[in-house]
Amino acid sequence: MQGVLAQISGAQTVVLATPVKGDAAIAPAILYAASLCGIKLVLQIGGAPAIAALAYGTETVPQVNKIFGPGNAYVTMAKQLCAQQVPGLAIDMPAGPSELLVIADARANGEFIAADLLSQAEHGPDSQVILLSDSAEVIAATEKALAEQLKTLPRAQIAKAALENSALFKVQSIAQAVEVSNLYGPEHLILQLGESAEVLPKIKNVGSIFVGDYTPESAGDYASGTNHVLPTYGYSKVYSSLSLLDFYRTYTVQTVTKSGLADLAKAIIPMAAAEGLDAHANAVRIRLGEKQ
Amino acid sequence: MQGVLAQISGAQTVVLATPVKGDAAIAPAILYAASLCGIKLVLQIGGAPAIAALAYGTETVPQVNKIFGPGNAYVTMAKQLCAQQVPGLAIDMPAGPSELLVIADARANGEFIAADLLSQAEHGPDSQVILLSDSAEVIAATEKALAEQLKTLPRAQIAKAALENSALFKVQSIAQAVEVSNLYGPEHLILQLGESAEVLPKIKNVGSIFVGDYTPESAGDYASGTNHVLPTYGYSKVYSSLSLLDFYRTYTVQTVTKSGLADLAKAIIPMAAAEGLDAHANAVRIRLGEKQ
Repeated sequence: MQGVLAQISGAQTVVLATPVKGDAAIAPAILYAASLCGIKLVLQIGGAPAIAALAYGTETVPQVNKIFGPGNAYVTMAKQLCAQQVPGLAIDMPAGPSELLVIADARANGEFIAADLLSQAEHGPDSQVILLSDSAEVIAATEKALAEQLKTLPRAQIAKAALENSALFKVQSIAQAVEVSNLYGPEHLILQLGESAEVLPKIKNVGSIFVGDYTPESAGDYASGTNHVLPTYGYSKVYSSLSLLDFYRTYTVQTVTKSGLADLAKAIIPMAAAEGLDAHANAVRIRLGEKQ
Repeated sequence: MQGVLAQISGAQTVVLATPVKGDAAIAPAILYAASLCGIKLVLQIGGAPAIAALAYGTETVPQVNKIFGPGNAYVTMAKQLCAQQVPGLAIDMPAGPSELLVIADARANGEFIAADLLSQAEHGPDSQVILLSDSAEVIAATEKALAEQLKTLPRAQIAKAALENSALFKVQSIAQAVEVSNLYGPEHLILQLGESAEVLPKIKNVGSIFVGDYTPESAGDYASGTNHVLPTYGYSKVYSSLSLLDFYRTYTVQTVTKSGLADLAKAIIPMAAAEGLDAHANAVRIRLGEKQ
């Protein structure tokens, strides 16, 4: 999700940091994905120490300008502290626990909803999943399907812990569900609605939207092609999903001719005077051969 | 510089916070500029308390999602701390002291260079101005002009203090000057060169570039039309000059059909299995009517 963008952006130095447990080797799947993305340097480090090494540089770890990617609360705090302390270092966004919100109307399939809620809930005990529906029947069907599907789920313990932070809400209307969703600002939003066209433009704060009965969140995780480094914990109100824009930066360039400067002088000199900045005005006057 | 962008972006609540000394009133020029930008709420507050009020909201100050604009070290730290503590709050970029770097060849005018250096130096005693030239004569002419122009400058004391953090460097070539500039990453870069066309594409890290003899930095401050909320202190390596992009955010939307999901399943299910995330695979299998 990040390596592809780094490769397209033409970033000169791309480093992958990945932690391993004890004496374990890095998973071959990770190394293969890294090689597909042209990543030449893979570091077997993780957590806050990895962030510090990349931010400051060490004998073996190159100092980098941008540190992207999710992590736990310690990693997030390390990223924020390093970005404060090292000039010229930026991070992508603060990362909180993962979230999924489903908005479903009366014709939605409770089994599909339950499967989506569990696919987010199995990520970790601090994940949060929310259902907003105007149909008591759909909520009841989802509850029943959750209990059924949990029976055979290998990560049922984790999913059950996450479900304790979670809730299925009956709303008065789909319009009310949209209002709640915009206040919450979910990382992932699934719309299981007969008609999404009217609802879609009303969504304001969200990381990624999954529209229709056959668009599970796991399609986005693995195969739909959208980037899955997404704002969480309400940060969709101010941050975008990761994109090439995060790898680029822009600057402005201006050229003024002598006659153009004579015109602009009528704005520059009075405004510099209003701010008591004489040298600002002088930089114009000297060029125009005027008395200082 | 920020109000215009806020107005174009369609931001719903735009607040201007501006400090005043003692019992003084807000400068009429500021109120007039605010009214031109359609800003309806002007708060007579400043410093770290203003940042906290906007980040958390008070009885009289609305809570906002984005806090933009330069400030001193206390304001910058307050912005960074609040962005860490308040989910859904973002800031523009960390702000350091203001900087100007001039690259000048043998045909450059020392009086113009000196005027530009002083226009940045008069901002504050912590400003930094740098000249890089391959001509000892131009450096000598600049030094002479600096001494001359300082004689009549009202803010000479401030400018002299800034000049103590500053330096005029003789470089071996303009190519070397570009290399140094890219390492420094200046907020403002002035190119006083006979030929800028070859140099311009080699500039990598910068806030805003001023090309040619008649493009003083004060043109950018007041009239050239570029935005002057710029990265400082090396942050041009990772941040862009302020633009409409800072007021917008993007999210992704995906819709998958049932037959499309059957195709994507060939990628999703093995990848979910490799990560041990069965509920992710189930969200696909249940939709396709497959055995879990």
